Amino acid sequence: MNIPKTEKKRVVIIGGGFAGISLAKNLKGADIQLVLLDQHNYHTFQPLLYQVSTSGLEPDSIAYPIRKILRKLSDFYFRLATVQHIDTETRCVTTDIGNLAYDYLVLATGTKTNFFGNEQIAKYALPMKFLPDALNIRSLMLQNFEYADDCTDMAERKAHLNFCIIGAGPTGVELSGALAELKRNVFPKDYKHMEINEMEIHLFEGGPQVLPPMSDHASKEAEKFLKELGVIVHLNAIASDYDGELLTLDDGATFRTKNCIWTAGVTGASIEGFKTDVMIEKSSRYAVNQFNQINGFDTVFAIGDIAQMDTQDYPKGHPQVAQPAIQQGEHLAKNIKRMLSGKEMTPFKYTDKGTMATVGRNKAVADIKKFRFGGSFAWLLWMVVHLMALVGFRNRVIVFFNWVYNYINYDKAARLIVRPFKPKT
Amino acid sequence: MNIPKTEKKRVVIIGGGFAGISLAKNLKGADIQLVLLDQHNYHTFQPLLYQVSTSGLEPDSIAYPIRKILRKLSDFYFRLATVQHIDTETRCVTTDIGNLAYDYLVLATGTKTNFFGNEQIAKYALPMKFLPDALNIRSLMLQNFEYADDCTDMAERKAHLNFCIIGAGPTGVELSGALAELKRNVFPKDYKHMEINEMEIHLFEGGPQVLPPMSDHASKEAEKFLKELGVIVHLNAIASDYDGELLTLDDGATFRTKNCIWTAGVTGASIEGFKTDVMIEKSSRYAVNQFNQINGFDTVFAIGDIAQMDTQDYPKGHPQVAQPAIQQGEHLAKNIKRMLSGKEMTPFKYTDKGTMATVGRNKAVADIKKFRFGGSFAWLLWMVVHLMALVGFRNRVIVFFNWVYNYINYDKAARLIVRPFKPKT
Repeated sequence: MNIPKTEKKRVVIIGGGFAGISLAKNLKGADIQLVLLDQHNYHTFQPLLYQVSTSGLEPDSIAYPIRKILRKLSDFYFRLATVQHIDTETRCVTTDIGNLAYDYLVLATGTKTNFFGNEQIAKYALPMKFLPDALNIRSLMLQNFEYADDCTDMAERKAHLNFCIIGAGPTGVELSGALAELKRNVFPKDYKHMEINEMEIHLFEGGPQVLPPMSDHASKEAEKFLKELGVIVHLNAIASDYDGELLTLDDGATFRTKNCIWTAGVTGASIEGFKTDVMIEKSSRYAVNQFNQINGFDTVFAIGDIAQMDTQDYPKGHPQVAQPAIQQGEHLAKNIKRMLSGKEMTPFKYTDKGTMATVGRNKAVADIKKFRFGGSFAWLLWMVVHLMALVGFRNRVIVFFNWVYNYINYDKAARLIVRPFKPKT
Repeated sequence: MNIPKTEKKRVVIIGGGFAGISLAKNLKGADIQLVLLDQHNYHTFQPLLYQVSTSGLEPDSIAYPIRKILRKLSDFYFRLATVQHIDTETRCVTTDIGNLAYDYLVLATGTKTNFFGNEQIAKYALPMKFLPDALNIRSLMLQNFEYADDCTDMAERKAHLNFCIIGAGPTGVELSGALAELKRNVFPKDYKHMEINEMEIHLFEGGPQVLPPMSDHASKEAEKFLKELGVIVHLNAIASDYDGELLTLDDGATFRTKNCIWTAGVTGASIEGFKTDVMIEKSSRYAVNQFNQINGFDTVFAIGDIAQMDTQDYPKGHPQVAQPAIQQGEHLAKNIKRMLSGKEMTPFKYTDKGTMATVGRNKAVADIKKFRFGGSFAWLLWMVVHLMALVGFRNRVIVFFNWVYNYINYDKAARLIVRPFKPKT
């Protein structure tokens, strides 16, 4: 890579998600040269991806160019690159666009969809991790509705109108809720000649309750909301096969569906050419100490979802959500600055600000400190928190306007099949 | 196709562009069954496509779901379909999703990009006709900037930063102007280590002036504006070859470029299986009488760009822009209603409301009736007219907000490579 080497220490960050961006922003003012590598030229606000899938928001509302976010850093370079290998001996990163030497390296590569080795499901089900995934889901959903509207074979039609969402974490729950609102408020007006109840939304969860990481109260409340919206919730239901047409559970039950969306798990997006013996095989995360140094390395750090810092409160690492990532980024920035001025690093301490999930209009659940609540107030709070967390004034205004518009009009406007999706055969 | 046949007359419209939508909307209240077929599920506001290409607007701001536009029609069906053949004997349309009988048929298929038979250019240059085209241009532009930022071979770098736009009609002029504004206001902040003047914008026009259909005043003014913005204008310059790397003019001059965009012409998007002897070969348009009936057919009409109605004022048909399409749609709706109530049809008469084109901030030209003017007022007028013409309150607000934001911040925010574009090799 052609980045001039100066006398300043070079910090290389791999990944422009919550962790990488938070670190980079907070390194402002440090006497370093900063390089950030990512496979996309934008930062994605993943908590709202499901609204892109369901026509509520456009991609640009939840994405922000990385170069623009970090424009104010003085000695900063961005490169659109995929990292293939790390050589910690020579301190060199190998990418698809060349090599890059580093003084300090920070892995912030996040997670990728985990199909738990099920190749059939990996091939035919749709993941929802990146913007193109969300747009694929949107296109497929609308294509299947268009098909169904002209289909006289009832079984065939129902397969196109049947939505099976696997995994009832926040993403699965929010996606099911948004689909239910499309069914209730939007599709009946678009597809007047269709019997809308032929559309079914099934949510499958392997465990005994929805939103497994949240409180019992939140899980029960969310399940109640989902049922009110007409989502059919299947608990202790594990998907074992999907062939593009038939979804099979491990108890043998089958569901015919052309819309199978997989939100059942993630695994660390570790770097193919950097499987150290401190990579935790099960989670595919790098084990780090309390300074986010990968165990055994002084100058290689990991932050966010890809890092596993086992602590007393979190013996299996922090939850793989935005907050620990942002906080670790902020903290590591401080530690890098301390290091550069010869001070000792301080250990990371996570502050749990709580968890929220939204199911639909006036329906959300929140666990914040000791408070467990649900309903309209949780929903309003969810919206405020997410609006504030979005990057950039413009995106906040556009998302806010879209939400107000959708709320007043019971509408989701972006029902466009811009790039048709071709299901695998 | 599975659309119930009733006792009402069935009117089938092929195409949901300006003409087709205008006709369908104005058929509200008519005692007919209406079917609209289109290859996309949305109507595209093509005059603003260039702003999608240049990161100024997102696709959903200039596209609108067809089902939503026509939601209030009573006996209306939309089908996502590509028409392959028309049998006027049996009054039947053949499409990729089945056959459909009609009582009245209206062709409103518009135009497609015309490469004038140059296969090399058709293969390697990028058209800008549909939303995916515009998004391809955006991705390619940003990918080439990312590549150039890390490239030390100067010739190679310049090829990636060289933009060649072929055809100086409104689309070519507006696109060149928008690129010039990116060069001036946006890219220098994103690519701080780059010498921005290595980016060149060349606009090629086969004739002796830019904006050939407009007045001399407008052409001269637009050319002046383009030059002020740093666009290099080549008049009487005809492209003869492009191989993905080298653009050759017919006088032998060559330009090395990785960004070659073709806006040099359109031709009627006539239906492959309906080449009647009244199809005008040169323009690929259907010759129609003053009632928009295709010559020789009582029940088959053509409106908008695909129709050629030769009149005293327009001996080679109306200009292929939005206004004649909208007006013919409105007029044919009236005539269909007249016909159904046993009245005679009235001839179409085109009202020229004028022509406008925008080059950049405070820079536009307008020919309206006898007035020829340019500058800030024309620019403001251009914006008001285009905002009013957009479909839907939401789209108007979002486009307006984006324009105000871009104007104040000298920014174009949607610089996202959502789907990378793979140039042909």
